[in-house]
Amino acid sequence: MKIIEGGVCAIDNILAGGHKKGKYGLGIIYTGKSTAATVFTSNKIKAEPLKLTMKNLEDGRISAIIANSGNANCFTGPKGMEDAQRMAKLAADGLSIPENGVAVASTGVIGRKMPMNIIETLTQKVLKNLENSPRGSRKFAEAIMTTDTFPKEFAVEFELDDGNTARIGGVAKGSGMIAPNMATMLSFITTDVKASPSQLKEALKKAVDESFNMLIIDGDESTNDMVILAATGKSGKIDDNFQEALNLVCRELAKMIAKDGEGATKYMEVEVLNAKSKKDARKAAKTVASSPLVKTALFGADPNWGRIIAAIGYSGAMIKEENVSIILESENRNIELIKEGKIIASENSKELKIAADIMREDEIKIIIDLGIGKEKAKAYGCDLTYDYVKINAEYTT
Amino acid sequence: MKIIEGGVCAIDNILAGGHKKGKYGLGIIYTGKSTAATVFTSNKIKAEPLKLTMKNLEDGRISAIIANSGNANCFTGPKGMEDAQRMAKLAADGLSIPENGVAVASTGVIGRKMPMNIIETLTQKVLKNLENSPRGSRKFAEAIMTTDTFPKEFAVEFELDDGNTARIGGVAKGSGMIAPNMATMLSFITTDVKASPSQLKEALKKAVDESFNMLIIDGDESTNDMVILAATGKSGKIDDNFQEALNLVCRELAKMIAKDGEGATKYMEVEVLNAKSKKDARKAAKTVASSPLVKTALFGADPNWGRIIAAIGYSGAMIKEENVSIILESENRNIELIKEGKIIASENSKELKIAADIMREDEIKIIIDLGIGKEKAKAYGCDLTYDYVKINAEYTT
Repeated sequence: MKIIEGGVCAIDNILAGGHKKGKYGLGIIYTGKSTAATVFTSNKIKAEPLKLTMKNLEDGRISAIIANSGNANCFTGPKGMEDAQRMAKLAADGLSIPENGVAVASTGVIGRKMPMNIIETLTQKVLKNLENSPRGSRKFAEAIMTTDTFPKEFAVEFELDDGNTARIGGVAKGSGMIAPNMATMLSFITTDVKASPSQLKEALKKAVDESFNMLIIDGDESTNDMVILAATGKSGKIDDNFQEALNLVCRELAKMIAKDGEGATKYMEVEVLNAKSKKDARKAAKTVASSPLVKTALFGADPNWGRIIAAIGYSGAMIKEENVSIILESENRNIELIKEGKIIASENSKELKIAADIMREDEIKIIIDLGIGKEKAKAYGCDLTYDYVKINAEYTT
Repeated sequence: MKIIEGGVCAIDNILAGGHKKGKYGLGIIYTGKSTAATVFTSNKIKAEPLKLTMKNLEDGRISAIIANSGNANCFTGPKGMEDAQRMAKLAADGLSIPENGVAVASTGVIGRKMPMNIIETLTQKVLKNLENSPRGSRKFAEAIMTTDTFPKEFAVEFELDDGNTARIGGVAKGSGMIAPNMATMLSFITTDVKASPSQLKEALKKAVDESFNMLIIDGDESTNDMVILAATGKSGKIDDNFQEALNLVCRELAKMIAKDGEGATKYMEVEVLNAKSKKDARKAAKTVASSPLVKTALFGADPNWGRIIAAIGYSGAMIKEENVSIILESENRNIELIKEGKIIASENSKELKIAADIMREDEIKIIIDLGIGKEKAKAYGCDLTYDYVKINAEYTT
């Protein structure tokens, strides 16, 4: 497997482009006739474009994606649905494809009318500049940014068992309002493998469960977010190599979102080992990565492992105090804080000092060995900072 | 029902006192031979004093409570249990009561050895100054404060059906690490009604469910916290009037904790009306009060009701978009933001301006009418501020 350039445009024949104007942005991806799989938010309030996309892609077919930033088109009723349909029609007309082959996605403020004149102007501009090049994918990734501070793209090339070389490329957006149970960001992924909609669906679900669904910024869960995987079918047949590559693409995009968490200064991975069940491993990892007390300790570079212990305790995962071990790790070093229930990093110990040094680094891994089973899981998050509060106290006004 | 002074000492024969020294504090309540009910944290990691108290109060009898702040005595193993037992013995010896009649509570940093020499000195000092007076209760309430900015006490006098006048008085502590599912703060409540342990248990569970369990600061759940209700039996028999008074005492103490949330500048009540089920009402209220995005909007005085809608949506409660109404209320006014699914407070509307004015006040109520059932619930919370981050980024170091 090889990491390559180009995001969604790493795949032949996929065109992309985007444009930003003030607080609004618009991007289009043209996939041609492709099979598709989707994952949508589990929030019971669903944005109008999301409802439309669920309907349009029900048959597992897609030709294009149109996405805007600046307005979520959510809780906007029949007028909002009309606007979403109008977006689909604008893309369909410009690309000479059927309207029901278009996915529509929106991100931004909830409960405001779509600025359709701006959307139309942007759409016409973007339609004229679609290209199958790294620049096209990059422009799309930039157009859908809201509080994101950098565009998110990742692509790989790999061999299929049938001898063909295949590719997967993705873009993503999202920094606040990211929570488990998916749905809480936008990601569009393209590939050239040959796969039925149901094969794609199965593969996407697996990949999302280990990546976007293990991503935590603030625990809020959006009304708008979706992941779409589109396959052109120009390369070989879907197989386990594809799954492995898709897992990697989703994981890398999820990590980028965690690193770009609103106001984040530090990136955190929480790995839980030897849990009684997979569910327990996931719960414990997500709960620690979600804990405001762990997140503020991370920001303050405070090796206050008691908060990790407390979070494991209320996660609902089965634990035995005397079996728990905790290791803190950075790129260059690691230190055992707790070993099978015994405190190693006690007050004023040299281990606690090393832990404090590790906490001052930018990327931190917390490894929790529950020691009572064989299952594991990893969650991705970031610290809770003054800037998170600032960004979100000032978002709409 | 009459609000009175005196906290836990509003009840005859109850003695209390406390002393603070640097970051450590210690308080004692002497209840005499009383019946008792308890509620403990649901965190699977339980502090040593909590384990001891569970055992000592198993028979529903209590004579005294000893509580310290500054060290949680949690994840401290056999040595921690020894220290908790030592605390019980110090109180028991000083008060000439059996050790197993003593409840022990601790709050503070997790995973550190108890400073037993300081604890012993403080205990001897406090034992000499116990009194049945408002000052005794106040000193206890102050001694158990950690990041609290004010002591929390509340007491009422009321008539029982049997003609007797009875009283309930309580103290509480807690500002960070407060979450639903109880357990996440300390509260000690005394009364003079006559009640069996099981009657007390039932009454306490009901009261806690509507008060402390609907309290949200940051969603973290402590390893240490407990509520104890002790009844001296010197007045009349427990009845519905008692339940009503106990509900009030617990609710008022819970509100004080919400108002004193770490770094909080605003107090928030979220009331959900006409939910399909009680469980739905509770879930929706707690989820809105917990949402970091709602909490930061509150801090920023931003009437961003889309975040309320999104939180209701992911709460898991059953909703119909077209039935939802949302009202924002302060002491002097209120404004409808959403009426049966229709946006009233649209962009640039006068309603949104009034909403912004309301958001600038100190105490805000969000009323959510789901319009699909008859059940209701209320949650208590506060805003998420720079100071929350500051306090928790700097706690142990």
